[in-house]
Amino acid sequence: MVSSENHDPQVCEVFRQAIELIGRRWTGAIVSVMLKGATRFCEIRDAIPGISDRLMSERLKELENNGVVVREVIDSRPPQVSYRLTEKGEALGPVLDSVSVWAAEW
Amino acid sequence: MVSSENHDPQVCEVFRQAIELIGRRWTGAIVSVMLKGATRFCEIRDAIPGISDRLMSERLKELENNGVVVREVIDSRPPQVSYRLTEKGEALGPVLDSVSVWAAEW
Repeated sequence: MVSSENHDPQVCEVFRQAIELIGRRWTGAIVSVMLKGATRFCEIRDAIPGISDRLMSERLKELENNGVVVREVIDSRPPQVSYRLTEKGEALGPVLDSVSVWAAEW
Repeated sequence: MVSSENHDPQVCEVFRQAIELIGRRWTGAIVSVMLKGATRFCEIRDAIPGISDRLMSERLKELENNGVVVREVIDSRPPQVSYRLTEKGEALGPVLDSVSVWAAEW
Protein backbone atom coordinates (compact mmCIF):
# COMPACT_ATOMS: atom_id res chain seq x y z
CA MET A 1 0.00 0.00 0.00
CA VAL A 2 1.07 3.54 -0.69
CA SER A 3 0.96 5.89 2.22
CA SER A 4 -1.28 8.80 1.41
CA GLU A 5 0.60 11.27 3.60
CA ASN A 6 2.19 14.12 1.70
CA HIS A 7 -0.22 13.38 -1.10
CA ASP A 8 -1.54 16.92 -1.46
CA PRO A 9 -3.05 17.13 -4.97
CA GLN A 10 -2.00 20.75 -5.26
CA VAL A 11 1.61 19.94 -4.42
CA CYS A 12 1.49 17.10 -6.97
CA GLU A 13 0.20 19.46 -9.60
CA VAL A 14 2.95 22.01 -8.91
CA PHE A 15 5.56 19.23 -9.01
CA ARG A 16 4.17 17.88 -12.27
CA GLN A 17 4.18 21.31 -13.90
CA ALA A 18 7.72 21.95 -12.72
CA ILE A 19 9.17 18.67 -13.96
CA GLU A 20 7.34 18.88 -17.27
CA LEU A 21 8.54 22.44 -17.81
CA ILE A 22 12.16 21.47 -17.20
CA GLY A 23 11.85 18.26 -19.18
CA ARG A 24 10.36 19.83 -22.29
CA ARG A 25 12.57 19.27 -25.34
CA TRP A 26 15.66 21.58 -25.11
CA THR A 27 14.48 23.52 -22.06
CA GLY A 28 17.00 21.91 -19.72
CA ALA A 29 19.78 22.59 -22.21
CA ILE A 30 18.79 26.27 -22.57
CA VAL A 31 18.71 26.87 -18.82
CA SER A 32 22.01 24.98 -18.45
CA VAL A 33 23.72 27.16 -21.03
CA MET A 34 22.31 30.31 -19.43
CA LEU A 35 23.56 29.19 -16.01
CA LYS A 36 27.03 29.09 -17.59
CA GLY A 37 26.66 32.75 -18.54
CA ALA A 38 25.10 32.96 -22.01
CA THR A 39 22.76 35.92 -22.45
CA ARG A 40 22.40 36.50 -26.22
CA PHE A 41 20.10 34.53 -28.48
CA CYS A 42 22.85 33.38 -30.86
CA GLU A 43 25.21 32.63 -27.99
CA ILE A 44 22.66 30.29 -26.42
CA ARG A 45 21.74 28.74 -29.75
CA ASP A 46 25.34 28.10 -30.77
CA ALA A 47 25.99 26.25 -27.51
CA ILE A 48 23.15 23.81 -28.21
CA PRO A 49 23.86 21.66 -31.26
CA GLY A 50 20.69 20.81 -33.14
CA ILE A 51 18.25 23.43 -31.84
CA SER A 52 16.41 25.55 -34.42
CA ASP A 53 15.79 29.32 -34.10
CA ARG A 54 12.04 28.74 -34.09
CA LEU A 55 12.15 26.20 -31.28
CA MET A 56 14.55 28.34 -29.30
CA SER A 57 12.25 31.37 -29.48
CA GLU A 58 9.35 29.20 -28.41
CA ARG A 59 11.21 27.77 -25.42
CA LEU A 60 12.54 31.16 -24.32
CA LYS A 61 9.00 32.53 -24.49
CA GLU A 62 7.72 29.64 -22.32
CA LEU A 63 10.50 30.21 -19.81
CA GLU A 64 9.61 33.91 -19.78
CA ASN A 65 5.93 33.08 -19.16
CA ASN A 66 6.99 30.84 -16.29
CA GLY A 67 9.13 33.50 -14.68
CA VAL A 68 12.38 31.63 -15.26
CA VAL A 69 13.83 33.99 -17.86
CA VAL A 70 13.58 37.77 -18.37
CA ARG A 71 13.98 39.31 -21.82
CA GLU A 72 15.65 42.70 -21.81
CA VAL A 73 15.94 45.16 -24.67
CA ILE A 74 18.82 47.61 -24.51
CA ASP A 75 17.91 50.83 -26.28
CA SER A 76 20.97 51.12 -28.51
CA ARG A 77 21.35 51.31 -32.28
CA PRO A 78 20.58 48.67 -33.27
CA PRO A 79 18.60 47.63 -30.15
CA GLN A 80 20.15 44.68 -28.37
CA VAL A 81 18.13 41.88 -26.86
CA SER A 82 19.48 39.86 -23.98
CA TYR A 83 18.09 37.12 -21.80
CA ARG A 84 18.86 36.49 -18.17
CA LEU A 85 17.72 34.03 -15.57
CA THR A 86 15.50 35.29 -12.77
CA GLU A 87 16.13 34.20 -9.19
CA LYS A 88 13.68 31.37 -9.88
CA GLY A 89 15.76 30.44 -12.91
CA GLU A 90 19.05 30.54 -11.01
CA ALA A 91 17.47 28.23 -8.45
CA LEU A 92 17.23 25.56 -11.15
CA GLY A 93 21.02 25.10 -10.90
CA PRO A 94 20.90 22.39 -8.22
CA VAL A 95 18.03 20.64 -10.01
CA LEU A 96 19.95 20.42 -13.29
CA ASP A 97 23.09 19.39 -11.41
CA SER A 98 21.26 16.47 -9.84
CA VAL A 99 20.01 15.42 -13.28
CA SER A 100 23.59 15.61 -14.62
CA VAL A 101 24.90 13.48 -11.79
CA TRP A 102 22.21 10.87 -12.40
CA ALA A 103 22.72 10.93 -16.17
CA ALA A 104 26.48 10.60 -15.85
CA GLU A 105 26.22 7.74 -13.37
CA TRP A 106 23.58 5.76 -15.23
CA MET B 1 30.97 34.54 -23.85
CA VAL B 2 30.20 31.03 -22.80
CA SER B 3 33.12 28.94 -21.75
CA SER B 4 33.36 25.84 -23.86
CA GLU B 5 34.93 23.73 -21.13
CA ASN B 6 32.82 20.81 -20.02
CA HIS B 7 30.96 21.11 -23.27
CA ASP B 8 31.27 17.49 -24.27
CA PRO B 9 28.55 16.85 -26.86
CA GLN B 10 28.14 13.29 -25.63
CA VAL B 11 27.60 14.39 -22.04
CA CYS B 12 25.10 16.98 -23.29
CA GLU B 13 23.23 14.30 -25.19
CA VAL B 14 23.07 12.02 -22.15
CA PHE B 15 21.87 14.94 -20.00
CA ARG B 16 19.23 15.88 -22.57
CA GLN B 17 17.94 12.32 -22.81
CA ALA B 18 17.82 12.03 -19.03
CA ILE B 19 15.94 15.26 -18.41
CA GLU B 20 13.51 14.62 -21.25
CA LEU B 21 12.82 11.11 -20.00
CA ILE B 22 12.04 12.36 -16.50
CA GLY B 23 10.09 15.35 -17.77
CA ARG B 24 7.81 13.40 -20.07
CA ARG B 25 4.17 13.81 -19.16
CA TRP B 26 3.43 11.77 -15.97
CA THR B 27 6.80 10.03 -15.82
CA GLY B 28 8.00 12.02 -12.81
CA ALA B 29 4.73 11.29 -11.03
CA ILE B 30 4.98 7.54 -11.73
CA VAL B 31 8.55 7.28 -10.44
CA SER B 32 7.60 9.42 -7.42
CA VAL B 33 4.73 7.13 -6.50
CA MET B 34 6.93 4.04 -6.97
CA LEU B 35 9.61 5.57 -4.73
CA LYS B 36 6.91 5.75 -2.03
CA GLY B 37 6.39 2.02 -2.39
CA ALA B 38 3.70 1.37 -5.01
CA THR B 39 4.31 -1.79 -7.07
CA ARG B 40 0.95 -2.72 -8.63
CA PHE B 41 -0.47 -1.12 -11.76
CA CYS B 42 -3.72 -0.04 -10.12
CA GLU B 43 -1.93 1.15 -6.99
CA ILE B 44 0.29 3.46 -9.06
CA ARG B 45 -2.61 4.62 -11.21
CA ASP B 46 -4.86 5.39 -8.26
CA ALA B 47 -2.18 7.59 -6.71
CA ILE B 48 -1.98 9.76 -9.84
CA PRO B 49 -5.21 11.66 -10.43
CA GLY B 50 -5.92 12.11 -14.13
CA ILE B 51 -3.68 9.46 -15.70
CA SER B 52 -5.29 6.99 -18.11
CA ASP B 53 -4.54 3.25 -18.22
CA ARG B 54 -3.23 3.56 -21.76
CA LEU B 55 -0.81 6.37 -20.93
CA MET B 56 0.34 4.59 -17.81
CA SER B 57 1.17 1.40 -19.74
CA GLU B 58 3.06 3.47 -22.28
CA ARG B 59 5.09 5.29 -19.64
CA LEU B 60 5.86 2.11 -17.70
CA LYS B 61 7.04 0.50 -20.94
CA GLU B 62 9.33 3.49 -21.65
CA LEU B 63 10.73 3.34 -18.13
CA GLU B 64 11.30 -0.39 -18.60
CA ASN B 65 13.13 0.23 -21.90
CA ASN B 66 15.30 2.81 -20.14
CA GLY B 67 16.23 0.45 -17.32
CA VAL B 68 14.40 2.47 -14.67
CA VAL B 69 11.61 -0.03 -13.99
CA VAL B 70 11.45 -3.83 -14.06
CA ARG B 71 8.21 -5.67 -14.72
CA GLU B 72 7.85 -8.91 -12.83
CA VAL B 73 5.24 -11.61 -13.32
CA ILE B 74 4.53 -13.84 -10.36
CA ASP B 75 3.40 -17.26 -11.52
CA SER B 76 0.25 -17.55 -9.41
CA ARG B 77 -3.40 -18.08 -10.35
CA PRO B 78 -4.23 -15.57 -11.67
CA PRO B 79 -0.67 -14.41 -12.53
CA GLN B 80 0.27 -11.21 -10.72
CA VAL B 81 2.21 -8.43 -12.35
CA SER B 82 4.28 -6.06 -10.29
CA TYR B 83 6.64 -3.22 -11.09
CA ARG B 84 9.71 -2.22 -9.18
CA LEU B 85 12.39 0.40 -9.57
CA THR B 86 15.86 -0.74 -10.53
CA GLU B 87 18.92 0.72 -8.82
CA LYS B 88 18.98 3.31 -11.61
CA GLY B 89 15.33 4.10 -10.82
CA GLU B 90 15.94 4.38 -7.07
CA ALA B 91 18.76 6.81 -7.87
CA LEU B 92 16.15 9.20 -9.27
CA GLY B 93 15.01 9.94 -5.71
CA PRO B 94 17.41 12.86 -5.14
CA VAL B 95 16.62 14.24 -8.62
CA LEU B 96 12.88 14.28 -7.97
CA ASP B 97 13.46 15.68 -4.47
CA SER B 98 15.37 18.61 -5.91
CA VAL B 99 12.53 19.26 -8.38
CA SER B 100 10.04 19.17 -5.47
CA VAL B 101 12.08 21.64 -3.47
CA TRP B 102 12.30 24.00 -6.42
CA ALA B 103 8.60 23.64 -7.25
CA ALA B 104 7.54 24.23 -3.66
CA GLU B 105 9.77 27.27 -3.30
CA TRP B 106 8.83 28.91 -6.58
